[in-house]
Amino acid sequence: MGNLSVKPVKVGICGLGTVGGGTFNVLQRNAEEIARRAGRGITVAQIAMRSANPQCDITGIPTTNDVFEVACNPDIEIVIELIGGYTLAKELVLKAIDNGKHVVTANKALIAVHGNEIFARAREKGVIVAFEAAVAGGIPVIKAIREGLAANRINWLAGIINGTGNFILTEMREKGRAFEDVLKEAQALGYAEADPTFDVEGIDAAHKLTILASIAFGIPLQFDKAYTEGITRLTTADVNYAEALGYRIKHLGVARRTEAGIELRVHPTLIPADRLIANVNGVMNAVMVNGDAVGSTLYYGAGAGMEPTASAVVADLVDVVRALTTDPTNRVPHLAFQPDALSDHPILPIEQCESAYYLRIQAKDHPGVLAQVASILSERGINIESIMQKEAEEQDGLVPMILVTHRVVEARIIEAIAAMEALDGVTSPVIRLRVEQLN
Amino acid sequence: MGNLSVKPVKVGICGLGTVGGGTFNVLQRNAEEIARRAGRGITVAQIAMRSANPQCDITGIPTTNDVFEVACNPDIEIVIELIGGYTLAKELVLKAIDNGKHVVTANKALIAVHGNEIFARAREKGVIVAFEAAVAGGIPVIKAIREGLAANRINWLAGIINGTGNFILTEMREKGRAFEDVLKEAQALGYAEADPTFDVEGIDAAHKLTILASIAFGIPLQFDKAYTEGITRLTTADVNYAEALGYRIKHLGVARRTEAGIELRVHPTLIPADRLIANVNGVMNAVMVNGDAVGSTLYYGAGAGMEPTASAVVADLVDVVRALTTDPTNRVPHLAFQPDALSDHPILPIEQCESAYYLRIQAKDHPGVLAQVASILSERGINIESIMQKEAEEQDGLVPMILVTHRVVEARIIEAIAAMEALDGVTSPVIRLRVEQLN
Repeated sequence: MGNLSVKPVKVGICGLGTVGGGTFNVLQRNAEEIARRAGRGITVAQIAMRSANPQCDITGIPTTNDVFEVACNPDIEIVIELIGGYTLAKELVLKAIDNGKHVVTANKALIAVHGNEIFARAREKGVIVAFEAAVAGGIPVIKAIREGLAANRINWLAGIINGTGNFILTEMREKGRAFEDVLKEAQALGYAEADPTFDVEGIDAAHKLTILASIAFGIPLQFDKAYTEGITRLTTADVNYAEALGYRIKHLGVARRTEAGIELRVHPTLIPADRLIANVNGVMNAVMVNGDAVGSTLYYGAGAGMEPTASAVVADLVDVVRALTTDPTNRVPHLAFQPDALSDHPILPIEQCESAYYLRIQAKDHPGVLAQVASILSERGINIESIMQKEAEEQDGLVPMILVTHRVVEARIIEAIAAMEALDGVTSPVIRLRVEQLN
Repeated sequence: MGNLSVKPVKVGICGLGTVGGGTFNVLQRNAEEIARRAGRGITVAQIAMRSANPQCDITGIPTTNDVFEVACNPDIEIVIELIGGYTLAKELVLKAIDNGKHVVTANKALIAVHGNEIFARAREKGVIVAFEAAVAGGIPVIKAIREGLAANRINWLAGIINGTGNFILTEMREKGRAFEDVLKEAQALGYAEADPTFDVEGIDAAHKLTILASIAFGIPLQFDKAYTEGITRLTTADVNYAEALGYRIKHLGVARRTEAGIELRVHPTLIPADRLIANVNGVMNAVMVNGDAVGSTLYYGAGAGMEPTASAVVADLVDVVRALTTDPTNRVPHLAFQPDALSDHPILPIEQCESAYYLRIQAKDHPGVLAQVASILSERGINIESIMQKEAEEQDGLVPMILVTHRVVEARIIEAIAAMEALDGVTSPVIRLRVEQLN
C-alpha cells in the first residue's frame, strides 16, 4: 500500500490508566485501518506508567516510570500526555515541547488553566499541541468548531459536557431519585470520583466550556472568569415542576457572544423538553453550536470512557502525523484563530449575563403574595412568561408559586429576588434556576 | 494581524444561485472572522453566472456567463463549483483540475457518480477536490468521519440526509396528513423541486449515502449499487401503527459493514421513538456514525439552504487555503483512505442485506391466519419480536395484523411474504417496512 512503506511514526504514551490503556489498545487493534487512512503506521515506542494496566498487552514495548524519559526520548516524535492533573502534566508537556516534540493530550484542566502559556511555547518551537480528547470525549467537537464551522461567526454554544452530572440528572428525572442517592450509585459505578466536586460543582464542565469558548470566539483561555454553579442543591421537586412546565433540567455549559462581552457559565438549566439536547440522557454528552451561517448544529456521543476518549486521542495523532511535513504558519491554530488575531472582548461577570429565570416561591397568603411578586417584577421591567400555581402539597401547608420570566440581566433578577424574600408572605429563600430556549 | 499581510487567496465562484449566493454573502460578511482563522483573506476574483442574484451585491467583481473562463482564469487558485448537475459540472471540474486549480463543490450527484474519476485526476495534478457541502449541508459530517473518527473501524452509519423527505414524514406523523398533501406544501414552500423524484424516491439520499459509505469504510464510490426505496407509498396508517409500537418512521440512509459485504440502502425505516435521531424533525438532517472505539455519535443541523450549505463550502475553502503549502501526499485523502488502500469489499445486493421487518397483513379470518403466518415465519427461522392486532377499523371489516420480526436476511422475508400472500385469508399485498434499532 504505497505510502505505507514510509517509516512509521514513533509515539510515546505517558500514563497507562483508563485513557492511556484505551489509546494503546485502539492503536494496536486498528493499526491497519489507521495506516490505511494516515498513509503511515503509528508505533508506540515507549510507555511511561506507574503500574501495568491489566487490559493492555504491552509485551515488547519499552516502559519506564519516569514520564520525562519519554519527553526526552530522541526516537519519539509525538508525546501523548494522559497522566492528568496540572503540575507534573504541565512540566511534562513543556519539556516535550522544548525538545521539539508534538503533544497530544486529553487534559482539560491543563489546557483550560495553562493553555495560553503552553500554546505560546509550542508556537515558538513550531510544534502542535492537540487536545480534541479534552472536551466531550470521543465527539470531534473541537474539530467541528475549529475547522468545520470556520465560515461562521459563532453566536453561542451550549453543552452537556459532564457525563456524571447528566447521569445524576437523568436518574433524578426518570426515577424521582434524590441527588445524594444517585451520586452514591454513580460513585459505585465508577462514573464519579471518590471526590465528586469537579463533576457535580461544574468545575470539570467549566474547564471544557472555557476551551470551547476560546475556539468559538477567538479569545484567550480564561478559566478563572467562568461562572460555575453545581447541581448539588437541586431537588426532585424542581425537576418535576420543570417537567410540568414543559422543560428538562440539564447541567449546561453556556457560552454566548453579546455586544457587551462574552457569557461563560455552567449551571443547572431548564431547556424546552422538545429540544434534541434536552433528550440527551445518561452519561452521554452533546454540544450545540450556533453560527450565523449554519444556524444550530449539535454533536452527540460518549463524553468519557476508555475507548471513546482514546478515539479522540488517536484522531489527533493522525492529524499530527499528517501535519509533520506542513509549514507551521499554515496549520490550524491551537485556538482556531491566529494567535495575533485573538480578541480582548471581555468575559462578563455573571451579574451582567442575561437569561430567563425559573423562580419557585414558597408563599403563605397566595393571592396577596402573587400580586406583590408581580409588582416587584413589573417595577424592574421583568416580564412573566408563565405562572404555575400548585395545590398545597407539603406538610406545612405552604403553596409553591412557580414563575418563568422573559430574558433579563441577572443583576435585575437578584434585586427582584431580594425584594420577594423581604415580603412577609414569603417564608423561605426563593429557588432560582436559569432557563435557556436554545433556538 | 501578522499573517494577514499575506496576499489574499483568489477564488472563483461558478453558479450564483442559492448556494452560490450564500457562499458569496458569507465570504463578504464574515471576511474578517474568516481571515482571523485562516491567516489569509479570501477574495472572490470572478463569478460565472447565468443571471444576477438579487440577494447578492457583487459590485466591482468581474462576472462572466462562461464557467470555463473561471476554470482558466490564471489569477484564480480555487474554483467553487455550484452549478449542479452531472455533465457541465463534470467538464468544469476536470478543466479546473487540469489547470492545476483546487476545487470546492457542493455537488453530491457529481461526486457520487463521477467522484472516482475526478479524484484520480485531482491526485495526478496534486490538487484537492473538497466536498463537505455535498452531504448534509452545513453539518461538518465529512470532516467528522474522515478526520474526527480516524481512529475507528466504522461499523455502520445511518442518516436523515434529505430535508424534504423528513419534512414530509414529520408532517404526516404530527398532523396525520397524507403524503401527497404534504408534498404539495413542500413544493409551495420551495423545499421540494417541481420534479420531486430525487427527494422522495431516495436518489438524493443515495448520492449522499454513497459518499458517506466510501469515507467510512474505505471503498470506491459505487452509487449504482445503492438500493433505494422511496416514501411515496407510505400511508398515515403505517405511520400511526409504528407510533403505537413505539417507533417513528424516517427515510433513512443506512450503510453497514458486515463479513459478507457492505449494505448500502435508502428506505423508509422504523426507529425506536426514544432514539435521538428519531426526534430529528422538519427539514433538519442528522447522521449517526458508529465506530468500534467511539461507539455511537450523532451530527445534527440544517441539511440544505442558502447559508447552511455555504457554511460547508467556505469551511472547505479555509481547509484548502491552509493546504496550499502542504505536501500532497500528506493531505487527508479525498475518500479518507489512501487511494491505494481502498478495499474491494463488495456492496451487497438488497436480498443479502439484513434487517428487522415490520409487516402489515390484511386478514379475513384472524386467528386462523395468525397461526398460518406464524408457521410461515417459524419454518424460515424468522423470530417474531412483537405482534399488534388492531380492532377492525376499515369499512371492509378486514383486520390488520402487524408483526415486527427479529433481524433476518431480506431474501428470507421476501419468501415469507410470498407465502403469506398466497394464503386464502390474506386479501391484499403485505406491507413491509424495515426496522433498525440503531444501538
